Amino acid sequence: MTDSSVFATYEIETSLPLQYAAEVLAGEQSTGTFVRVERESDEVRARFAAQVERLEEVPLTGASALPGAIGDPAERRRARVTLRFPLDNFGPSIPNLLAAVAGNLFEIKELAAIKLVDLELPSAFAERYAGPQFGVAGTRRLMSRPDGTMIGTIIKPSIGLAPHELAEVVSELATAGIDFIKDDELQGNGPTAPLAERVKAVMPVLERHADQTGVKPMYAFNITDDIDRLEANHDLVVAAGGTCIMVCINMVGLSGMEYIRRRAQVPIHGHRAMFGSISRSDQLGIGFAAWQKLARLSGADHLHTNGISNKFYESDAEVLAAIEAVRTPLLGLTPTVPVLSSGQWGGLAHATHDAVGSTDLLVLAGGGIHGHPDGAEAGVRSMRDAWASAARGETVGDALRSSPALRRAVEQFGPARE
Amino acid sequence: MTDSSVFATYEIETSLPLQYAAEVLAGEQSTGTFVRVERESDEVRARFAAQVERLEEVPLTGASALPGAIGDPAERRRARVTLRFPLDNFGPSIPNLLAAVAGNLFEIKELAAIKLVDLELPSAFAERYAGPQFGVAGTRRLMSRPDGTMIGTIIKPSIGLAPHELAEVVSELATAGIDFIKDDELQGNGPTAPLAERVKAVMPVLERHADQTGVKPMYAFNITDDIDRLEANHDLVVAAGGTCIMVCINMVGLSGMEYIRRRAQVPIHGHRAMFGSISRSDQLGIGFAAWQKLARLSGADHLHTNGISNKFYESDAEVLAAIEAVRTPLLGLTPTVPVLSSGQWGGLAHATHDAVGSTDLLVLAGGGIHGHPDGAEAGVRSMRDAWASAARGETVGDALRSSPALRRAVEQFGPARE
Repeated sequence: MTDSSVFATYEIETSLPLQYAAEVLAGEQSTGTFVRVERESDEVRARFAAQVERLEEVPLTGASALPGAIGDPAERRRARVTLRFPLDNFGPSIPNLLAAVAGNLFEIKELAAIKLVDLELPSAFAERYAGPQFGVAGTRRLMSRPDGTMIGTIIKPSIGLAPHELAEVVSELATAGIDFIKDDELQGNGPTAPLAERVKAVMPVLERHADQTGVKPMYAFNITDDIDRLEANHDLVVAAGGTCIMVCINMVGLSGMEYIRRRAQVPIHGHRAMFGSISRSDQLGIGFAAWQKLARLSGADHLHTNGISNKFYESDAEVLAAIEAVRTPLLGLTPTVPVLSSGQWGGLAHATHDAVGSTDLLVLAGGGIHGHPDGAEAGVRSMRDAWASAARGETVGDALRSSPALRRAVEQFGPARE
Repeated sequence: MTDSSVFATYEIETSLPLQYAAEVLAGEQSTGTFVRVERESDEVRARFAAQVERLEEVPLTGASALPGAIGDPAERRRARVTLRFPLDNFGPSIPNLLAAVAGNLFEIKELAAIKLVDLELPSAFAERYAGPQFGVAGTRRLMSRPDGTMIGTIIKPSIGLAPHELAEVVSELATAGIDFIKDDELQGNGPTAPLAERVKAVMPVLERHADQTGVKPMYAFNITDDIDRLEANHDLVVAAGGTCIMVCINMVGLSGMEYIRRRAQVPIHGHRAMFGSISRSDQLGIGFAAWQKLARLSGADHLHTNGISNKFYESDAEVLAAIEAVRTPLLGLTPTVPVLSSGQWGGLAHATHDAVGSTDLLVLAGGGIHGHPDGAEAGVRSMRDAWASAARGETVGDALRSSPALRRAVEQFGPARE
């Protein structure tokens, strides 16, 4: 039964009886109507209907009801509901799975909140979708960083650099010993900085660095574009010796991600921009635990999780849950690298490492590297020193004693977190 | 300037000064940081930065703040803000446009609400994206319905019919004089009812009907699937004489939609399932007015707008605004057919027609046709009689006097709306 079913877990709110609302949800998303129609036999219902598998009442979040919700507002309650869908209704197809577990249900007026928070998928999905091709091990190999936390950065300013300026920035970062550099998600393939020109500016710098040192830092070129351009964009990067492509997953869709995965010869850096549009509300949308499974099945070698003490809205607890989610094995797929970013610097290494317990992470620091008072090389050193210290089980105090670069970072960015 | 810029309008809430919050938004989505970094010259800022074009305070909706919003909750205010983005930052690429106008911005903690509500796009988008290929006129031609409202229905039960049962239902509906039939969005390409079997069951019935009557009702086969299967699914439909494909836009992404548009030989029925996940909250996401422009550019010949008195959460005012949005000319594209569905029946024709002022609509009734007390033929007749009466400028009373089928529908579905 487990391997022929999909289990989808929701948090819902309703002013109607909880069990009734859960059954409306199950009906709308399987046999398609709560009222029985002609030819909807008991046999059809038994074979195709989604079932309410579990229902547990949980406290209201305090957030207001979604617009259009019916019933007495004073009666509103919240529940965590798991529905079981027969796999045969849609087969192991992510787009058709989504129609069932995340289709019209967000519009149901019986529900005052409706968020898909987890998905349990049968093995048929891993037979159809290959998942990451490189993952942690492949990424480490390509960037010549066999152990320790992978340290990366983002090109800043995000947009507006001329090719020779971009080459300068990349040269500085390579010299600084960076493992990974990425385009900003805002840098796509616009007229002022086409992908082809960026590749032409960046790759000779990295190739020269590799010739001299034996190490080619990984550069994730943002190839996000119409589907019909993705493969050509990828080929352009690979032909120039590039070792990574970046895709904004929500901009091309999970389907677009999967399309380029089938053609990719290098790791895919999965950016989650726009994810907040479905995730930030407690009352509506799709949570990260559910979404990241689909992104990994679709082939994300790297996946953004945000980082602690970030500049966005998420709490540390949410971020750590996201990192844990990405690190949790999924249907035998190659492990995806969690990507920590936003407000990251060396002073967050110990707190993050203590919570995560691993260095199989790619940590991106923008200001934390570019803005280090002694420059990018010291910025990279401060990050690397801090993570190495954390991995050795030392305290923040130990790291500060042994790393001048981290001490200088603290002067700029404030106290390191214990 | 207008033709080299994109104008994106948001509704935001913030406890910080409104102008400041708008500038944080503009900074995050263009030069990429609110703090100036090295090489971010005045020239870079002048050329690439998004600008706050308009800002108008509007009343709070009463909905609660998004999680993680900073500032004094008592100071929260709401504004409608228009930003101007230089087109050259991303070029006329929908995926890269989205990264700018709908990327990380949903996660900004300075904002307690953030919804993209409209987009004004320059003509370059219509040069790159072909938009609908058939639209209103092409759809009418294929279904032999040169004027009057196009009347359609959905196969019910949504899933679970055996091929011979599906053929029976389609035969009944064709005999009833229906213009259009569609698969449910839950009916994809699963093992129990593969697309190929549905096509094989349905098309001979429609071809036989066409041979006898000269009219081939349009059947929208749901071809939603992985990108690499879309073209084969389309070809299967077209090879069997099918005249329409249905795509769940959000399941394959706008990019997947555009991908199949470039290959389609028949109209694309654009289903909006999952749209509620980004649209239902007043505090977060993307509104229909903005989203439908991207769906039309990507090639939707038909686009779901919901209908008045529907079974979902939307008010009549929201539905009518959605229909109006789809009917509003866009960059010279072929007009898309608005698709009204959910709880539709003949008794809604006059109220809808009075508000919309057009019969260039595809109105889908499930229960309103399948559930008519005298069967599907009477159901179709009741719909057609009602819409013809409305189009002649008659009252509901006139229609009831002249149409026995509508009178019987009223007995089943309650009073008709004036």
